[in-house]
Amino acid sequence: MTRPVQIAVIGAAEGEPEALEAAEEVGRLLAEAGAVVICGGRGGVMEAASRGAKSAGGIAIGVLPGSDPAEANEHVAHVVATGVGQARNLAVVGSGEAVIAVDGHWGTLSEIAFARKLGKPVVALRSWELQHRTEQELGIVEAGSPAEAVEAALVAAG
Amino acid sequence: MTRPVQIAVIGAAEGEPEALEAAEEVGRLLAEAGAVVICGGRGGVMEAASRGAKSAGGIAIGVLPGSDPAEANEHVAHVVATGVGQARNLAVVGSGEAVIAVDGHWGTLSEIAFARKLGKPVVALRSWELQHRTEQELGIVEAGSPAEAVEAALVAAG
Amino acid sequence: MTRPVQIAVIGAAEGEPEALEAAEEVGRLLAEAGAVVICGGRGGVMEAASRGAKSAGGIAIGVLPGSDPAEANEHVAHVVATGVGQARNLAVVGSGEAVIAVDGHWGTLSEIAFARKLGKPVVALRSWELQHRTEQELGIVEAGSPAEAVEAALVAAG
Amino acid sequence: MTRPVQIAVIGAAEGEPEALEAAEEVGRLLAEAGAVVICGGRGGVMEAASRGAKSAGGIAIGVLPGSDPAEANEHVAHVVATGVGQARNLAVVGSGEAVIAVDGHWGTLSEIAFARKLGKPVVALRSWELQHRTEQELGIVEAGSPAEAVEAALVAAG
Repeated sequence: MTRPVQIAVIGAAEGEPEALEAAEEVGRLLAEAGAVVICGGRGGVMEAASRGAKSAGGIAIGVLPGSDPAEANEHVAHVVATGVGQARNLAVVGSGEAVIAVDGHWGTLSEIAFARKLGKPVVALRSWELQHRTEQELGIVEAGSPAEAVEAALVAAG
Repeated sequence: MTRPVQIAVIGAAEGEPEALEAAEEVGRLLAEAGAVVICGGRGGVMEAASRGAKSAGGIAIGVLPGSDPAEANEHVAHVVATGVGQARNLAVVGSGEAVIAVDGHWGTLSEIAFARKLGKPVVALRSWELQHRTEQELGIVEAGSPAEAVEAALVAAG
Repeated sequence: MTRPVQIAVIGAAEGEPEALEAAEEVGRLLAEAGAVVICGGRGGVMEAASRGAKSAGGIAIGVLPGSDPAEANEHVAHVVATGVGQARNLAVVGSGEAVIAVDGHWGTLSEIAFARKLGKPVVALRSWELQHRTEQELGIVEAGSPAEAVEAALVAAG
Repeated sequence: MTRPVQIAVIGAAEGEPEALEAAEEVGRLLAEAGAVVICGGRGGVMEAASRGAKSAGGIAIGVLPGSDPAEANEHVAHVVATGVGQARNLAVVGSGEAVIAVDGHWGTLSEIAFARKLGKPVVALRSWELQHRTEQELGIVEAGSPAEAVEAALVAAG
């Protein structure tokens, strides 16, 4: 395969300033490393990651819940308008070789869960801290900074 | 509306004996209360809840990931074969006026997340204990027994 | 399997009077034969088929595009609120052992296509008349009346 | 919006030689015109269109039914692995400003139907010839060659 590696960046449509800043840096660092950013295509963390990728000359692909490509933020290079509503969360994480969660709430949690269900590596930055009832290892790496998150995701994506 | 109330019961396809026992009792108690059980239609907790509902003369509806109704467990009264893979998790919780999670792993976590995203009340029985980074209230009721879980779900379903 | 046979009835949300009348009779005859009606849960042909099933003491299950069970017509006995938008068309036909199309337009055509893709028998009543470029046999039975359509569907569902 | 126009190219996974040749030329001509090709990411017509786009230095995006990006053909530049099975057909046509159907069978028919349901312009090249019962105008342009199909799609995409 000669395609560039794809990393999904997930997080809320309404992010706090620190989250947006972190997401933008994640997008920028991924693009600098040659990776394509996959995101949900809307605002907040999704838009920040797209803007970061674009600012470094990279590519973000927005995977929308609706059927209208015009709903994507202006920084994505390409749009997939799935039309399947929140089920597009499955498409976002399925498309990444690894997943970076920045902040986020219920939608992001559904994506983390789907990602792990699919066996995809997940890196969490200021996001949900999960613990299963059985205290088993969950396969989620906690990162302390955008640089750490990007490095961990690229290593995990192999 | 004259339809009976619908409660989604979610949990893993491979459940521990205690979880299966609890799920069967949840299904039985829901049926005795006149509620319809919505589940993922497969084995484990899904099958146990279906069996419980049927044993009390009630109805379980299995919402399958695949397109073949024959993949449903033998205790469901009706089957919806969605064909949308794991995205059927969204359909399961969307169809309940409230959701009871019994045990469960990543698939169940995706359902809890979707349920809360949709604003549906969630009752957790031996399931994920979640805490958001912001320590905000998550709207998930912890139940100590099947009877408690069913009562909480029916009250929440209003 | 001891479940009753399930027949999907598909057609437009805005049907002409003749189509609505036909759909209601299809629903009624299916219920009289002990079959469960699966439909899209909304108005028009979907509502007429649901009303017909209910009028004969039978069961219609509405499979909705959205996540709010309250969007279903008042005649369905149970609701599956898929949340996957028009992709619920795949769920409707996947859930039937056979499919009856009454009238209908683009949405109905997508359902006929998915049904045949899945290998489900399709009976058309006043609906699309299709012909493939290769003139191959398409596996769609044309029926001249609701009674003929129901009989053909039940035979095909085996 | 500064994104390049996106045109969906749809058709069967097992195409006849003439269809594959036509699809490859469609992909090539779209890429030469600066358009991005959206396709289902698998073999046959999808692969031929991807190969054509790539051969002209353009971009094809494969929108897969499954959750494994590795299932894409080797000519796509980027992959969205939706995980929603045949419901990905909705995502393919939703992502195009216009749709070109090359040959094709039931899957393609579901895509033509969804595209028209969404109001997207459809150009048919050696594909289904449809006629509605009411003989209303269907909004599908018949093209006689790849060049004609690409021109009609680009005009329709505006």
